[in-house]
Amino acid sequence: MKLWITTIIAAATFAVTSTPQASQLDLNNDLAYQLVESLTVEVGPRLAGSEADARAVAWAEQKFKQLGFDKVWSEPFTMQYWERGNASLRVEAPFNQALVLTALGGSVGTPFDGITSQVIMFDNLQQLQQADPASVKGKIVFINQTLRKDIRGGFYGQVVGARAQGAVEAAKQGAKAIIIRSVGTSNNRFAHTGIMRYQDDVTRIPAAAISVPDAQQLSKILAINPEARLSLHMQNNLPGEVTSHNVIAEITGSKRPDEIVLISAHIDSWDEGTGALDDGAGVGIVMATAALLKKEQPERTIRVVLFGNEEGGLIGARAYAARHAANLNNHVFASESDFGAGRVWRFDTGFGEQALAFGAQVQQQLKHLGIEAGTNTASGGPDVSVLKAQGVPVATLQQDGTDYFDYHHTPNDTLDKIDPAALQQNLQAWLIMTRAIANSQVDLRK
Amino acid sequence: MKLWITTIIAAATFAVTSTPQASQLDLNNDLAYQLVESLTVEVGPRLAGSEADARAVAWAEQKFKQLGFDKVWSEPFTMQYWERGNASLRVEAPFNQALVLTALGGSVGTPFDGITSQVIMFDNLQQLQQADPASVKGKIVFINQTLRKDIRGGFYGQVVGARAQGAVEAAKQGAKAIIIRSVGTSNNRFAHTGIMRYQDDVTRIPAAAISVPDAQQLSKILAINPEARLSLHMQNNLPGEVTSHNVIAEITGSKRPDEIVLISAHIDSWDEGTGALDDGAGVGIVMATAALLKKEQPERTIRVVLFGNEEGGLIGARAYAARHAANLNNHVFASESDFGAGRVWRFDTGFGEQALAFGAQVQQQLKHLGIEAGTNTASGGPDVSVLKAQGVPVATLQQDGTDYFDYHHTPNDTLDKIDPAALQQNLQAWLIMTRAIANSQVDLRK
Ligand SMILES: [Zn+2]
Ligand SMILES: [Zn+2]
Ligand SMILES: [Zn+2]
Ligand SMILES: [Zn+2]
Repeated sequence: MKLWITTIIAAATFAVTSTPQASQLDLNNDLAYQLVESLTVEVGPRLAGSEADARAVAWAEQKFKQLGFDKVWSEPFTMQYWERGNASLRVEAPFNQALVLTALGGSVGTPFDGITSQVIMFDNLQQLQQADPASVKGKIVFINQTLRKDIRGGFYGQVVGARAQGAVEAAKQGAKAIIIRSVGTSNNRFAHTGIMRYQDDVTRIPAAAISVPDAQQLSKILAINPEARLSLHMQNNLPGEVTSHNVIAEITGSKRPDEIVLISAHIDSWDEGTGALDDGAGVGIVMATAALLKKEQPERTIRVVLFGNEEGGLIGARAYAARHAANLNNHVFASESDFGAGRVWRFDTGFGEQALAFGAQVQQQLKHLGIEAGTNTASGGPDVSVLKAQGVPVATLQQDGTDYFDYHHTPNDTLDKIDPAALQQNLQAWLIMTRAIANSQVDLRK
Repeated sequence: MKLWITTIIAAATFAVTSTPQASQLDLNNDLAYQLVESLTVEVGPRLAGSEADARAVAWAEQKFKQLGFDKVWSEPFTMQYWERGNASLRVEAPFNQALVLTALGGSVGTPFDGITSQVIMFDNLQQLQQADPASVKGKIVFINQTLRKDIRGGFYGQVVGARAQGAVEAAKQGAKAIIIRSVGTSNNRFAHTGIMRYQDDVTRIPAAAISVPDAQQLSKILAINPEARLSLHMQNNLPGEVTSHNVIAEITGSKRPDEIVLISAHIDSWDEGTGALDDGAGVGIVMATAALLKKEQPERTIRVVLFGNEEGGLIGARAYAARHAANLNNHVFASESDFGAGRVWRFDTGFGEQALAFGAQVQQQLKHLGIEAGTNTASGGPDVSVLKAQGVPVATLQQDGTDYFDYHHTPNDTLDKIDPAALQQNLQAWLIMTRAIANSQVDLRK
């Protein structure tokens, strides 16, 4: 499938550069899809710090070179490695049955013989925090909070606290372990993983998630028999420090090569799916965007950064910000694609006041793709938020995330969940936005 | 929720009995749902021959008694027990990654160190049968056949042969193991289990299924690297003969107690889901049907049979037919509900010629539920087909099975997949059909 998008792109060029060129960009229509397919099939799951992560880094370097980028390199950083082991959860007699469980990223395991205990259920993290410690002591805490769907994934922030902080709060109350209802919106029987945190002065207890149907099942079992006991077995490896990498590639700017327009995604994924939506799609979109713009010789440098270990807590992004601290002033813009492969529906900026008129021009060029004007409070994306905190101007091409948390962080995040047409709409939006900024002289900080 | 379905039921009574009674049946609207909920929550998965199967039998006996059935008993039969162990499948270098796999029921395991081998892919069982044995010898066979959706599940029969017979055919050609694309219609990443067969004179090789996305992944990997190797590990237990049970309960006929109207489902389920659609729904429907008709004192005896070990190959049904061989002439009718919880859309019979007019009357009474007239070639359901082969008249209330193979035989067959309204429509249809037959004097054999 090839398309001439000359008319689309020409409009963008005309509006925002002082020297519009009649562009004849031959858009290879499925390059973004080809890239995410190649990454998910040939590398597959790529947990940060694993052997597969190293293969993903090598894959990215090789693809950037094949695509004709001017510079390609990787930047090492150190990180704490965590590896999933076996995990199982059973309800004991009289309703003896297995529940579908997955360890949360970073969790310690149980003793080899497991943890067998009564359960105490809470509706949310706040309720756990306010509980009488006597009622929690020695038990397995179960937080049964439902994530609601919406286009922005706006409820995720309210619910994910139980995943990130639950183990600390449960341990403070004397619990032996914590299980949470998956922070997901599907009733498919997959448990959602994701990073969790310990605190130095609080006992480290095992933390895991059960699928939505299993959370419903457990709450029904507890309604019939509040004394029901669970038996949890989990073995995880925390071998310590390893090295991972951010992968970086540039199309050197033809007029203002020192000015860096940074577009990004993250190369790592959770280990159970192939990371097609999170974040293979983003990898495909931003690699294809820069590769396709190369022919036009953009005025500013387009730098693609594939951050490592986003999932572990923006570890690659923090390393990038530290390493490039002296040069962040030359980062004229940054953005990340990391919300799946749904269509872009809104353009949000994080620009200085004077640059808002330019932002409005860009949105006008995106309008035919069904993209609305948004706010000036964009984060730029998870990794890019670290750069925003250092003053780098950002924008977010907001994707429709209605179904994102159906798949996110589960074994079910696989290539078949990507709609190629929606991915292509993303690519078009990124081409328009990136081109406009790369060919502009506007200072987005101001 | 309670409904008066007097008007519906009264029409049925009037049309087919010589002594119509003004029925005041207080239909407890959600009894079928309550029953399937109770079975799936309090027992959960109930693999034939397992400890959970015994609990399911006890559950059923107790429920029948609570519901006021006149007679409740169980009939033992012996069966070969098979139990799932750990199973894993990995693609080896350079695309090292895990695929989602499940053992097929009855399969032997691999050696402890697994089987590592190249793969040979076939489109279907016939292609495997026609292959050059030299190309298959020593390899893992992969049958990558797609199951298409339709309301009757009509393509299942064409595809399931690879599951049932694949191991024998692959072993004949010298393969070390066989994996098949799941006989399922969903792109959710669940592998579908189900029974497979060996043949006495053919080597027993391990047999397993991978999910639909994993089958797509493997075929993409093989397209890039036909030499790719798989590493299969599987441990299953085949401990030998155990006892399981059919559970039977009756509402004694008020006028012709020796004439048995048999309605049925199967009590066993595969071990990974909670068997809500297969066949908890059927259990709920037929138990509720008979329980609700008790108040009306049906003329013939309504016998509910919850067959054991349907999944292992109609083992309970064969035991039932053998034990009741001398009395099958008194079985005036038999039917089974075993196709999930979708709405009934067609009424098929397996009646004698003279009884077809009666069948048409019954269909007229079902019409307001959206149920069409069907054929006279009904099997009556999997277990009941064994009785049909012995001359017992049957009918099938055909359910909409469009989504059945999305969930069937996977971990995802759980209560939340049942639409209570559709289940209720099933119950209404079963009430009308069963009442009509139980109050009739028509000989359905003629
Ligand atoms: Zn992400
Ligand atoms: Zn993520
Ligand atoms: Zn069944
Ligand atoms: Zn079945």
